[in-house]
Amino acid sequence: MTTLTGEMLIGSSSIRGSDAEFHAVNPATGERMEPAFGGGTRAEVDRACDLAWAAFDAYRETDAESRARFLEAIAQAIIDIGDPLIERAMAESGLPRARLEGERARTAGQLRLFAEVLREGSWPELRFDTPLPDRKPLPRPDLRQRHIAVGPVAVFGASNFPLAFSVAGGDTASALAAGCPVVVKAHPAHPGTSELVGRAVQAAATACGMPEGVFSMLVGTGNQIGTDLVAHRHIKAVGFTGSRRGGLALMGVAAARPEPIPVYAEMSSVNPFILMPGALARRAEAIGKGFVGSLTMGAGQFCTNPGLVLAVGGDGLDAFLAAAADALGGVQPATMLTPGIHAAYTAGLEKLAGNPTVREVGRGCACNGPNQSQAALFVTEAASFLSDPALEEENFGSSSLVVRCPDLATLRTVVEHIEGQLTATIHMEESDTGEVRALLPVLERRVGRILVNGYPTGVEVGHAMVHGGPFPATSDGRTTSVGTLAIRRFLRPVCYQDLPQALLPEALRDGNPLKLWRRVDGMLTRD
Amino acid sequence: MTTLTGEMLIGSSSIRGSDAEFHAVNPATGERMEPAFGGGTRAEVDRACDLAWAAFDAYRETDAESRARFLEAIAQAIIDIGDPLIERAMAESGLPRARLEGERARTAGQLRLFAEVLREGSWPELRFDTPLPDRKPLPRPDLRQRHIAVGPVAVFGASNFPLAFSVAGGDTASALAAGCPVVVKAHPAHPGTSELVGRAVQAAATACGMPEGVFSMLVGTGNQIGTDLVAHRHIKAVGFTGSRRGGLALMGVAAARPEPIPVYAEMSSVNPFILMPGALARRAEAIGKGFVGSLTMGAGQFCTNPGLVLAVGGDGLDAFLAAAADALGGVQPATMLTPGIHAAYTAGLEKLAGNPTVREVGRGCACNGPNQSQAALFVTEAASFLSDPALEEENFGSSSLVVRCPDLATLRTVVEHIEGQLTATIHMEESDTGEVRALLPVLERRVGRILVNGYPTGVEVGHAMVHGGPFPATSDGRTTSVGTLAIRRFLRPVCYQDLPQALLPEALRDGNPLKLWRRVDGMLTRD
Repeated sequence: MTTLTGEMLIGSSSIRGSDAEFHAVNPATGERMEPAFGGGTRAEVDRACDLAWAAFDAYRETDAESRARFLEAIAQAIIDIGDPLIERAMAESGLPRARLEGERARTAGQLRLFAEVLREGSWPELRFDTPLPDRKPLPRPDLRQRHIAVGPVAVFGASNFPLAFSVAGGDTASALAAGCPVVVKAHPAHPGTSELVGRAVQAAATACGMPEGVFSMLVGTGNQIGTDLVAHRHIKAVGFTGSRRGGLALMGVAAARPEPIPVYAEMSSVNPFILMPGALARRAEAIGKGFVGSLTMGAGQFCTNPGLVLAVGGDGLDAFLAAAADALGGVQPATMLTPGIHAAYTAGLEKLAGNPTVREVGRGCACNGPNQSQAALFVTEAASFLSDPALEEENFGSSSLVVRCPDLATLRTVVEHIEGQLTATIHMEESDTGEVRALLPVLERRVGRILVNGYPTGVEVGHAMVHGGPFPATSDGRTTSVGTLAIRRFLRPVCYQDLPQALLPEALRDGNPLKLWRRVDGMLTRD
Repeated sequence: MTTLTGEMLIGSSSIRGSDAEFHAVNPATGERMEPAFGGGTRAEVDRACDLAWAAFDAYRETDAESRARFLEAIAQAIIDIGDPLIERAMAESGLPRARLEGERARTAGQLRLFAEVLREGSWPELRFDTPLPDRKPLPRPDLRQRHIAVGPVAVFGASNFPLAFSVAGGDTASALAAGCPVVVKAHPAHPGTSELVGRAVQAAATACGMPEGVFSMLVGTGNQIGTDLVAHRHIKAVGFTGSRRGGLALMGVAAARPEPIPVYAEMSSVNPFILMPGALARRAEAIGKGFVGSLTMGAGQFCTNPGLVLAVGGDGLDAFLAAAADALGGVQPATMLTPGIHAAYTAGLEKLAGNPTVREVGRGCACNGPNQSQAALFVTEAASFLSDPALEEENFGSSSLVVRCPDLATLRTVVEHIEGQLTATIHMEESDTGEVRALLPVLERRVGRILVNGYPTGVEVGHAMVHGGPFPATSDGRTTSVGTLAIRRFLRPVCYQDLPQALLPEALRDGNPLKLWRRVDGMLTRD
C-alpha cells in the first residue's frame, strides 16, 4: 500500500511519465528523497482528460447517495494509509506531525462534509414554474431547472497544504461532489504524499464502482503539463491555490482557449489586521502576543497569514510593537516548505529591510538549518506605504509590515488603497463601534471574510465560510474555495421546458420523488 | 416628458456629449430621425462611473422593500410614458406595435418580478455556522454569511429588444435588484427610445430618494465609449447582449484590466431544432408550419431563433421541408432593426446560397422596401456540415439550415460537434423516447434550455428559466440573463466572523429579525 512507485495515476492505471525525472526534497535536510517520479507529457494529459470526459455523463448522473459514499470512502482510505502518510508528508513539507495530523482530519472532514451536502440535497437548486396553459395572450410552458456539473475539472495541488488543498483537498472534494471528474496536477514539492493520497482516491473509485476516469493524477515539474491540462478541450473549470504569478498564468491560458473556461485561483493576500484605538488602549500586549502566534504558525505559510497591520500611532501601538517584538524574540526558526519558497521569503525580507522607509521592529531566533525562516516584523508610515507599491506585496511566510497612520481618516485611506484580500481582521472594543461601522463597507468591498477580535489563520470548514475575495486575492470574487458553497463553482443551470415525465431527471419529476428542497413559482418548499 | 433632447443622463443631470453627433435611422424608410445625439467621451464615462461608485455603498444597503419600490416605480414610469414610447421604438426599430407593446409589458413585468424576489428575501442566501466555544482542539467561531452586490455594473443595450434587453431591461433590473448601480451604454440604433426609458429610470430614482449615481446612461456610436466603460476601475461586472464579435471584444477588455471583472455576454446561438423520426412520421407538416412561424417571428431577430434543423433524411423530412417551403412562400418581408443588421443578413444569405453543398428549400416573399429581410430555408448533408465551419455560423435573421443526417448516430455526431447554444428543441413522439434519452446528456452539456415539442422563441421570464449556455452562446455558462436567477450574476459572498450584534447587517443578526430563509448549520429554515 505504501510503497511509492513514482508513477502517475490515470483512471485505474498507473503510468510512468516519460518526461524529466524529479525527486522530492526534504526541506529540513536538503536531501533528495526516493523514488524518482517520471514527469508527465501531453500524451498523459490527453489520456487523463479523455478518460475524464468519457466518465463525465455517467458520473454526473450517479445518485447523490452513491457520490456521498464515494467521498466517504476516499476519506476513510486516506485515514487508512496511517502513519506512512504523515511521515512522508512531514519529510516532504517540513511541517510538524501535529499540524499534518490535524490537516489529515480536516481533509477527511471536508470530504465527509460534502457527503452531507449531497444527502441534504439542495445543491442542484431545483426550480419549477408551473404551466399556465390558459394564460393569455400566450400559455406559460412547464419549466423546470436544475444545476448540473460543468464538466471535468483540473485541480492544482497547493504546496502549503499537502493534504487539505492538494490531491484530495477542498477543490477535489467539491468538484467530485458536484459530479465533475477531476484531473489533479500534483504539486512537485510533495509527490510522494500525492501518490499515496491519489492511490487512496483511485482505490475508493474502484471500490465504489465509479466510472474509470473520474479521477486521475498527473505529476511534473515544469509549467508545460499544467498549461496543457488547462488548455485541454475536455477540461471545463480549474481549481488552483498558489502564487499570483501562477494563477495569472493559468487565467491567461484559460481565457485564450477557443472555449474559455472559469479559473478559480486563490492567489495572494496580505490580510490586513486592523488595531482600533480602544483595543490598543486596553489590550495591546495581548494582541501583540496573539498576533505573533498567528503570524508565525506554520512558518507563516498560510493564505490568511496577517502580513499587514494597520493602526494609528501612539502609546497603544508602541505597546503592541513592543509586545510583538518580545514575542518574536522567542519564536524558533521554522523549516519552510521548499527551497524556492525559502529563497523567495529571504529575498523578500532583505528587500523590506533594505527599504529606507521601513524600520525593523523585531525578529525571531536566528536560523540554524537549511530552508529555515526567521520571523520578522517591520513598521512604516502610512505616507510611505501609500506611495510605494512594493510595500503592499505579499512576502509569503512569517513576515509582516505595520503601517502607522497619523489618524483614523488616514487608516481608512490605506484600507481604500489596498487590493482585494481574503480576510480583514479588526481588533476593537465597544468604544470603537462607530469607527468600525464606518470602516465595514470599505472592507466588505475588499475582502471575503471580516473577523473581529480574532486571528485570520485557521479557516473553519463549514457552510458559512468564505475563503475568497476580490481580485487579486482570487481570480473570481464570487466564490469560495473552502466550505460547502465551494460546490457552486462547478455547477451550471439547465432548464427543461415541457419535457415528458419519462425524460425528466428524477429530481425534477412530479411529486418530488427525492423529497428535495425546491423553489416552486418562486417559493421554497420541500412538499 | 416626451421631448427628446439628445442628451446623456448622468446621475440626476442631463449632459450633451461632445463627441461625434449621430441620429437614429428609421429602418423602414431609411430616414434620419431627430434629434441629434451627442456621443459621450471618456469624461462622461468617468463622471458616470465615479457617481456610481459614490452611490454604491449607500445603494447596496438600502432595504429590500425600498429597492423593490424603486423597481416598481421604474416599471410604472415606463408605462406612464404611454404611446410616445411605442411610437418612437417602432420608428427606431422597425418592429410592429403589438410586439413592442408586448415587450413593454415584459419589461415592466421583469422589474416587478425582481421586486418580488427582493420581498421574498432569499436572494442574499444567508448562512450561519453556530459557534462551538468548547470544541476541542479549537473552538468554532461564529460565522455568518450573506451575499452582497459586486459593485457598479455596465449594461449594454441590445439592438433586438429595445425595451426588454435595453436601458431598463433584464440586466439592469437584476443588477439594480442586487444592489448594484448601473451605467448603461445605450444601443445607438434606438437612442430616442433609450432616452425616454432612461429619463423614466432617472425620475424613479429621484422620486424614490435613491442616491444619485444609481443610474446613468451614456450614448455613442463607436467602440471607444464601451471600451472605456468596461475598463473603468469602478465598474465591477458587465452585462451584454449582442454579437459574438462584440462580446469577445468586451471579454478581452475586461480580462486585460488590472483587476479583471466578470462579463456576462449573451452572444450567439443557432438553437438546434431536432426532428425525431416518430414526430416526423406523425406531424411533419404541422411542425414545418410552426417552425416557419418561430423562424420568421420578429424578422428572425431573436437570440433563440432556430437557425439549425437536424433530422434523418426520408419521407418525413421531405414532408417537413415541403410544408416549411410552402409556409415560407406566404411570409411577408419584414423590416430589420438596422441597415447594418440587414446588410449582414443579406450577405449571410448570399454566402449560404453560394455554398455548393447547400440547396435552397424555400424563400419568403421578395422584399419591397429598405432594410427588409426575406426569410429563407436551406438544406445540406451532415457530412458537409461536419466539414465546413462556415455552415455553423449564426446568420442573425430569419434564415435556417437543415442538416440532413443519414441516421440517428450521425445526428448525434452532429450534436456532439456543435458549439454551446442557448437552446435545443426536440420534436418527438413517445416512440422516440429511447433515442431522445440517449441524446439528452449530449444536449445538457451544450445548451442552457432543452425544449420538447415547442419552439425556442418566446423566452418566459420566470424563476426556472435559463437563458444562457456554454460558450459561445454566452461568455459564462454558469448563469442566465433572463429570469430571477439572473440576480446571482451581480452578487458575491462575504463572511462575518465573531462580529458583535451591533455591527452585523440586520439580516444576519440573532433572532432572524427580517424573517428570512437562512441556512443554519447546513439546514434551510425560516425560524
